[in-house]
Amino acid sequence: MSASASAPAGTSVAPFRIGLLGLGTVGAAFDVLLSERADEIERFNGRRPVIGGVLTRSRGDFERILCDCDILVELIGGTEPAREYLLAAMRSGKDVVSANKQLLSQHGEELFETAREHGVRLRFEAAVAGAVPVVRVLEESLSATPIERIHGIVNGTTNYILTEMSAGASYEEALAEAQRSGYAEADPSDDVSGRDAAAKMAILARLAFGAPVHLQDVSYEGIEHLHRDDMQYARELGLGLKLIGTAERLRGGVSVRVYPAFLYGGHPLASVLGPFNAVTVESEAITEITLSGPGAGGRHTASAVLGDVVSVMTGGARPPAPPLALPLITDVESAFYLHLDVADHPGVLAGVTRVLGEREVSIRSVVQRGLGENARLVMVTHPVLESSMRAAVAELAEFDFVRSLPRTIRVIEEEYT
Amino acid sequence: MSASASAPAGTSVAPFRIGLLGLGTVGAAFDVLLSERADEIERFNGRRPVIGGVLTRSRGDFERILCDCDILVELIGGTEPAREYLLAAMRSGKDVVSANKQLLSQHGEELFETAREHGVRLRFEAAVAGAVPVVRVLEESLSATPIERIHGIVNGTTNYILTEMSAGASYEEALAEAQRSGYAEADPSDDVSGRDAAAKMAILARLAFGAPVHLQDVSYEGIEHLHRDDMQYARELGLGLKLIGTAERLRGGVSVRVYPAFLYGGHPLASVLGPFNAVTVESEAITEITLSGPGAGGRHTASAVLGDVVSVMTGGARPPAPPLALPLITDVESAFYLHLDVADHPGVLAGVTRVLGEREVSIRSVVQRGLGENARLVMVTHPVLESSMRAAVAELAEFDFVRSLPRTIRVIEEEYT
Repeated sequence: MSASASAPAGTSVAPFRIGLLGLGTVGAAFDVLLSERADEIERFNGRRPVIGGVLTRSRGDFERILCDCDILVELIGGTEPAREYLLAAMRSGKDVVSANKQLLSQHGEELFETAREHGVRLRFEAAVAGAVPVVRVLEESLSATPIERIHGIVNGTTNYILTEMSAGASYEEALAEAQRSGYAEADPSDDVSGRDAAAKMAILARLAFGAPVHLQDVSYEGIEHLHRDDMQYARELGLGLKLIGTAERLRGGVSVRVYPAFLYGGHPLASVLGPFNAVTVESEAITEITLSGPGAGGRHTASAVLGDVVSVMTGGARPPAPPLALPLITDVESAFYLHLDVADHPGVLAGVTRVLGEREVSIRSVVQRGLGENARLVMVTHPVLESSMRAAVAELAEFDFVRSLPRTIRVIEEEYT
Repeated sequence: MSASASAPAGTSVAPFRIGLLGLGTVGAAFDVLLSERADEIERFNGRRPVIGGVLTRSRGDFERILCDCDILVELIGGTEPAREYLLAAMRSGKDVVSANKQLLSQHGEELFETAREHGVRLRFEAAVAGAVPVVRVLEESLSATPIERIHGIVNGTTNYILTEMSAGASYEEALAEAQRSGYAEADPSDDVSGRDAAAKMAILARLAFGAPVHLQDVSYEGIEHLHRDDMQYARELGLGLKLIGTAERLRGGVSVRVYPAFLYGGHPLASVLGPFNAVTVESEAITEITLSGPGAGGRHTASAVLGDVVSVMTGGARPPAPPLALPLITDVESAFYLHLDVADHPGVLAGVTRVLGEREVSIRSVVQRGLGENARLVMVTHPVLESSMRAAVAELAEFDFVRSLPRTIRVIEEEYT
């Protein structure tokens, strides 16, 4: 790097002072990356970014840092005191950067409203999909086009686990491997429950549709309940199994949800492996754009945070516009895979198909396998309202001949060439 | 869209006036898209974007439009008079947006320098990869990370033709089909020669590395010389054949080139089909990010242009920093596929391998097929300097037993899982 060669020597422009809240994995990586890139950023922007103060649990004074710095970077995580710090900074006229998806997905409107009111910038690229710049793309280049749908893989931990499982590992083995490799935390519940992905989809939906979607508006299912049988079935049929987030316009409202789904082998998301993320943005004017890359990791996240800092230095992007009132649609159509363990008696299939028919669940394919006294019925349905499917499954569970709780997994039917 | 519901009624903020140069396919699509999106953009930005004046060959007055408008959008194409108009606009303090890759790739530094000097914005997302926001991503989110390499498919016309050819069509048939479908122009030479892709790679290289790369610095090969035999060979081996653009840091300098290449089936670019574009950006801090989507089309391009207008309205992004002096590296290593039509005599293979050995071209695999009096030798080499390969091929062409000009195609060796 010969950046320093053309940097203005002995310039008297004041440095751009960054107040850093939190010095964990991402904070430390940010500190390292900033020192590596300061020359180049100065060359580009005329001001040199420096750490002007650090607040951790054991050191630093928030008021003093706020006073001393041009921008506040929040990498503490959790909702409090991160929320209070960000609100206080914006109220005192400071631009802020945050990587905090839980905070943004739960208190987004309050933060956006405060940013608008005080005319400051609030940037949060690192809160969704790590180094993949989907927030920026939604905010900026796509503001010219009405977005119909966003869908993709926004949690690297679960994608890593599912990739391992598709190679034959059990859920427990795959989770242990993810923990060993640093892709899953000691307590993985936020990731494997789908809650982390739901928070990210809430943030993306707000940006894409302007509706005030928060975490509690997102219906989510995780991957903990997936059986080895299901994976086996997916392998046999050449299907991929992914944890998918979808946010879409539907019947005059929006639907935002996270769920495991079978995908056909040719689907673009089927080839996203390991800890990678990929998000597809669909719009009539652009057809579709897909962004993919590593979803997490301290240095990836730090790079997204530093990108936000640089974008504030160059004067980009405003806070989201005031929210639009769009109804939340909670009942959507999907095709389903249905797995039933049943007694191997005459009349069982007839009973099952009668219940499905009454609930307007139409069967696309069915496989029955005998296992001694028991049999396994695996079906794939045509698209049906999720409420109808749930009601049918509840009714099936009542049959004496159904030996364990029926299992369902959504199937994404679009085939790509 | 209920955007108008919350738009400020009777607002007295002046509209944001756009001077539009050119009303061809993209210009007309821009006009339509703008009228569709004006409500939403006003809701977001507080000002309503309107067309304040139009210049075509038959109507409009440039000086008047310049005077009347807040921003100039250049969609004329070609270098002159587009260059003069853009320079004049920037000198009079106006922000400008252009979709003109030929102009930017040939006169980029002059335009950037003028933008810097007059403190105005020069945006050109639509000049590369249509609706895929690779310019924005390079300028903004990745400014925090040193980019090592950019590579991908940046010409939709040739990718469409190669996709058709991989399904069995001849070059002539595929080109005719591309012209019928509107993916190739009546005179397709700019696309099929690789020159269009080279212009785009020059622009991306400038953004990624800061070096003043122009079109004349890019070595490029097109797809016109590809034979059906080569495609046949690719199909048999499960290889894809793509027109690839590469810009990378190499031995303290940069190399920028466009060339057809064989890719292994698992390579992410192998699955990019039809008129789609895909660009991968590699950097130590982010590993790699891939952006893909439709590469061209009036409405896609118009959407990128409107995105640029909106980004000027919101105050984003500065012109590129002054150029860095980085040497241009023109001799790079690559693996090669080598196709020789030879007489089927004893000693032929020995003669060929002796020449290759003297030039330090090491053979990885070889297939010889008899065809009556003639034989076909198909080899894949290990990576070798292109200059060595060229010298070896020139020497091979001198042999009496070589019946037609030897053909080479690069092979991208990385295998992905």
